[in-house]
Amino acid sequence: MLKISRKLLISATGRNSPQTQRFVSKVNLQGILPPITTPFNDDESVAYDKLSHNLNIWNSINFRGYVVQGSNGEFPYLTPDERVNVVKHVKKNIPDNKVLVAGSGCESTSATIEMTMKMGDNGADAVLVVTPSFYKNQMNSQALMKHYVKVADASNMPVILYSVPGNTGINIPLEALAELSQHPNIIGTKESGGDVTRIGEIVRLTKQHDFQVIAGSAGFMYAAYVVGAVGGVCAVGNILGKQVVDLHHMIMDGRWDDARELQHRLIAPNSAVTAKYGVPGLKTAMAWYGLYGGSPRYPLQQLTEPQVLDLRKILVDSGFL
Amino acid sequence: MLKISRKLLISATGRNSPQTQRFVSKVNLQGILPPITTPFNDDESVAYDKLSHNLNIWNSINFRGYVVQGSNGEFPYLTPDERVNVVKHVKKNIPDNKVLVAGSGCESTSATIEMTMKMGDNGADAVLVVTPSFYKNQMNSQALMKHYVKVADASNMPVILYSVPGNTGINIPLEALAELSQHPNIIGTKESGGDVTRIGEIVRLTKQHDFQVIAGSAGFMYAAYVVGAVGGVCAVGNILGKQVVDLHHMIMDGRWDDARELQHRLIAPNSAVTAKYGVPGLKTAMAWYGLYGGSPRYPLQQLTEPQVLDLRKILVDSGFL
Amino acid sequence: MLKISRKLLISATGRNSPQTQRFVSKVNLQGILPPITTPFNDDESVAYDKLSHNLNIWNSINFRGYVVQGSNGEFPYLTPDERVNVVKHVKKNIPDNKVLVAGSGCESTSATIEMTMKMGDNGADAVLVVTPSFYKNQMNSQALMKHYVKVADASNMPVILYSVPGNTGINIPLEALAELSQHPNIIGTKESGGDVTRIGEIVRLTKQHDFQVIAGSAGFMYAAYVVGAVGGVCAVGNILGKQVVDLHHMIMDGRWDDARELQHRLIAPNSAVTAKYGVPGLKTAMAWYGLYGGSPRYPLQQLTEPQVLDLRKILVDSGFL
Amino acid sequence: MLKISRKLLISATGRNSPQTQRFVSKVNLQGILPPITTPFNDDESVAYDKLSHNLNIWNSINFRGYVVQGSNGEFPYLTPDERVNVVKHVKKNIPDNKVLVAGSGCESTSATIEMTMKMGDNGADAVLVVTPSFYKNQMNSQALMKHYVKVADASNMPVILYSVPGNTGINIPLEALAELSQHPNIIGTKESGGDVTRIGEIVRLTKQHDFQVIAGSAGFMYAAYVVGAVGGVCAVGNILGKQVVDLHHMIMDGRWDDARELQHRLIAPNSAVTAKYGVPGLKTAMAWYGLYGGSPRYPLQQLTEPQVLDLRKILVDSGFL
Repeated sequence: MLKISRKLLISATGRNSPQTQRFVSKVNLQGILPPITTPFNDDESVAYDKLSHNLNIWNSINFRGYVVQGSNGEFPYLTPDERVNVVKHVKKNIPDNKVLVAGSGCESTSATIEMTMKMGDNGADAVLVVTPSFYKNQMNSQALMKHYVKVADASNMPVILYSVPGNTGINIPLEALAELSQHPNIIGTKESGGDVTRIGEIVRLTKQHDFQVIAGSAGFMYAAYVVGAVGGVCAVGNILGKQVVDLHHMIMDGRWDDARELQHRLIAPNSAVTAKYGVPGLKTAMAWYGLYGGSPRYPLQQLTEPQVLDLRKILVDSGFL
Repeated sequence: MLKISRKLLISATGRNSPQTQRFVSKVNLQGILPPITTPFNDDESVAYDKLSHNLNIWNSINFRGYVVQGSNGEFPYLTPDERVNVVKHVKKNIPDNKVLVAGSGCESTSATIEMTMKMGDNGADAVLVVTPSFYKNQMNSQALMKHYVKVADASNMPVILYSVPGNTGINIPLEALAELSQHPNIIGTKESGGDVTRIGEIVRLTKQHDFQVIAGSAGFMYAAYVVGAVGGVCAVGNILGKQVVDLHHMIMDGRWDDARELQHRLIAPNSAVTAKYGVPGLKTAMAWYGLYGGSPRYPLQQLTEPQVLDLRKILVDSGFL
Repeated sequence: MLKISRKLLISATGRNSPQTQRFVSKVNLQGILPPITTPFNDDESVAYDKLSHNLNIWNSINFRGYVVQGSNGEFPYLTPDERVNVVKHVKKNIPDNKVLVAGSGCESTSATIEMTMKMGDNGADAVLVVTPSFYKNQMNSQALMKHYVKVADASNMPVILYSVPGNTGINIPLEALAELSQHPNIIGTKESGGDVTRIGEIVRLTKQHDFQVIAGSAGFMYAAYVVGAVGGVCAVGNILGKQVVDLHHMIMDGRWDDARELQHRLIAPNSAVTAKYGVPGLKTAMAWYGLYGGSPRYPLQQLTEPQVLDLRKILVDSGFL
Repeated sequence: MLKISRKLLISATGRNSPQTQRFVSKVNLQGILPPITTPFNDDESVAYDKLSHNLNIWNSINFRGYVVQGSNGEFPYLTPDERVNVVKHVKKNIPDNKVLVAGSGCESTSATIEMTMKMGDNGADAVLVVTPSFYKNQMNSQALMKHYVKVADASNMPVILYSVPGNTGINIPLEALAELSQHPNIIGTKESGGDVTRIGEIVRLTKQHDFQVIAGSAGFMYAAYVVGAVGGVCAVGNILGKQVVDLHHMIMDGRWDDARELQHRLIAPNSAVTAKYGVPGLKTAMAWYGLYGGSPRYPLQQLTEPQVLDLRKILVDSGFL
């Protein structure tokens, strides 16, 4: 894995941790990292062979790496052991030059720290830490800052923040992001909410701190890039990986007309496998691209037949099937 | 524990489970069951001795029983083992005539079933199953019905549904409730949203099925009772247990003026230890009543000094301190 | 019209108005006041003859009075002249013992004052003033208090506050209500949001000030009464007026079982002609009760045929057709 | 005024209007059109002299034109006569080459049509028609489509759709936009919600129909442009007009780094005079740029002193004061 920078890490908040100094590698997130699905067998066990099959296909695409156990990985439905084992399995099945970002967020700070350490011990290059969200009213700037500082202080790996309000009802407030971006172990944020004004403001507030802002969906990827996002963690990359990588390069290369056209084509398919049909939709579509989708775990439901037809039509109409 | 009825259980949905027939006890929820807090030591470990202390005090109040690991029990912050051990400990510290309802809800159906069975094996009389909520867009009637039917089919104990939209963003839809109320193992629902029109409609839709509707907060308890709720699972009962039990009896006995006045007095304290200051507020207040509150687990934050003063003032102004 | 009390009026806020003293009649709102629809001819003109026809029927019911140009009166679709003329027409067609409450709320304070005065000059006994709502972010306690104080200072009639968050996205904050309840010209509030905890708290906060809290919908009327509401302004009263009046009396007389049963029966019909099908649904149903409904004004759309059938089924299933 | 295209107009929906054919000029919206504030004297009367003063300053900026009575014009607080007179006054005070877009939206379809005609008779080149919003539950695709088709059929001027969910709670659904874009009199939409995925999808769905998508705020202007928006109606243009015009040209000229930097600098000031402090904030800031701001109409409140200081600091920190 490419190490692009090193900086002296000093705990940002003396109160919360021992004053340790260490050198930690920073991970470069510039590029596309699909948040891969977790395949299950019919009995709901993890289908490791199918995961290998999918990775084998994905490895031929010019991805920057993978996000394992983002929202599309059904991480809330995995046991702690399964979370670790899936990461370990992915590590064994991807080349060394691919970044492996592992979701380690849990509701409690202590469980998040424990999961973070395990992810690091099992091959992750960085962790993605979703906001705790059950006690929404209490998850203010102060609580979220303390949570992330504690996790980042404890972590032996770079930490990526993660706001996904569609699932959690929570965005990390801007002032908390500005503060957290100064922590040497916090290297970026994944923004899945699609509010590009917010994304632009995050870039502005954090730009002195070598902080990487990642678009959390392909639907607003081009827009996020022009205001300073550097990478994309896009569900639709599971099925249209090459196209999402192309979009990244078009923008990087300044091919604006191509970028706009491809961005337009990606919006409807992306919405179909996220907001509209979610993980069940994404898994259904995977089969049409030679990948193993399979069923989601309960209580997620497989698509109905009319939903399958609608999803297929959206992909056909966009020229992707 | 009082067994008030027996009925022949037949799986409501043949598709989802083997056609078993069994006799299961129904649990009477008429009365007050405080959703007790989980006490922690300073190192965040569960303070079992403090839990015993609290239960010893609560046992002297005329509660119908206890809810262990409702939202106020910080269940999302407990490990699976801790969840079970806390229930086991409560069982040992309460008299036989108190109902023990244990929260067993998890995000996945399979984890919920596993936790449900463990709760039954460790002393629970019934389980309270909160709606899964991470994949909000997908948690429609169909998904929720299948989830609850699978859990109820598998359970050897009565199941209580649980909608708490303030935490989850989800209410079980009325049509799903009407359907689920017919399942022999599903004996009621805890409604924490405070929409009394909805509560009235649930009572109407389920009244042929011996289905118990429980008010999930003291703020609207009197109102919920007049439209047919039969019990209350009220956070404020941790500190004002006698008063909440009094309110129950005033309503039962038709002492309307007393009920109205007490209901009025309870609203502000109740809001203070729920919506306004949450579990940290409730735990802070517990100390003022001889109970052990202690700190919540991270990322929940202890109240600031001005918040403590405000909370105290609310209790004093209401005449409860 | 019954004058139940008199009190010395002194402007609550010296800053905003000349310090005038005057005696103003207080209006008794204890009972049911249906928020009547405004009938239109096919060319969208106001159908005054049809309004007379409807009033003639409604006058035989034991209503406390009428609300003209509540949300169900399509007031945002009427010109200022039409608003006044409809009130004038209603005044001529109802007996003296019925209270006439006229909606006079506009977005600006000055327009609201002007409309309030006109309503008073044309027969209204009190005005109902909905919260301004276009500039939602700015409609905080301070802005709403100043708005209502200015209107109440200027008014020669009692003023009733009106929160209807389903239409406006706004509830008057509790602290503003507590303050405004002390103004001698502000005699009550209509609460349409259905949050009975809030309603109970309003009653508690205002009970020293002879302040009348009105349930804004039949769906939660019984619940609102037990925590202190004294009357109901219920859309479903347009079609099931006698039943809503019966519910009022059952509660007043302490006939709790009857009240609960009738309340249960009213929820589904009430939801159908409010949240579900709105004014078009209410107008459609009116024809089934010998009243003139007619079409709403554009952009409101008449129900589709399947919607009409569903609405009819709801009324039949509830035993009201 | 520049006429950039002509097309044969045929009513898109035969049902709703006579089948007329007419030639109507299409208005080019490519560029910046600030939604100007309406200045008031201390007695709340319209300050026409101050409006002339402001326009005289604004006319020296390379704006494409003006939006009169967008949300920042306090149109809900103006009487119908004032709305027309303000437009008439603006027309007299701007050069012929500036486009004058007048807000003509009202809650009812008939009032909107009447206001549209008056705007056309008094100098408007196009009308901006905000979604009706009081009966939110009923404002579905069908209702909104019929509303806009009726207005566009009746209008002798181009019509611009307008979604501003922060004020109205409503976005015109995508399928309705796709349909309405085919109406020969509907030339574009102003999108103020900031969801750039939606904006991209609107561009894609309407691009065969010579339909202009306008960014409704400077906060996401650059992002909106790269997915196909062609102009900006930006509140902050009242005070930072030259800068917003510069941003337009930087994007048009492909000066991406400059564009990104300026976009970043504009986000905080833009948020301050829109979401954070609204029209009162914008009017306060105007005085710092030689413009007349004055007080908003009640119930909008002037900023408090701490708010003024905060606003000033935001502008200073951004380098704009």
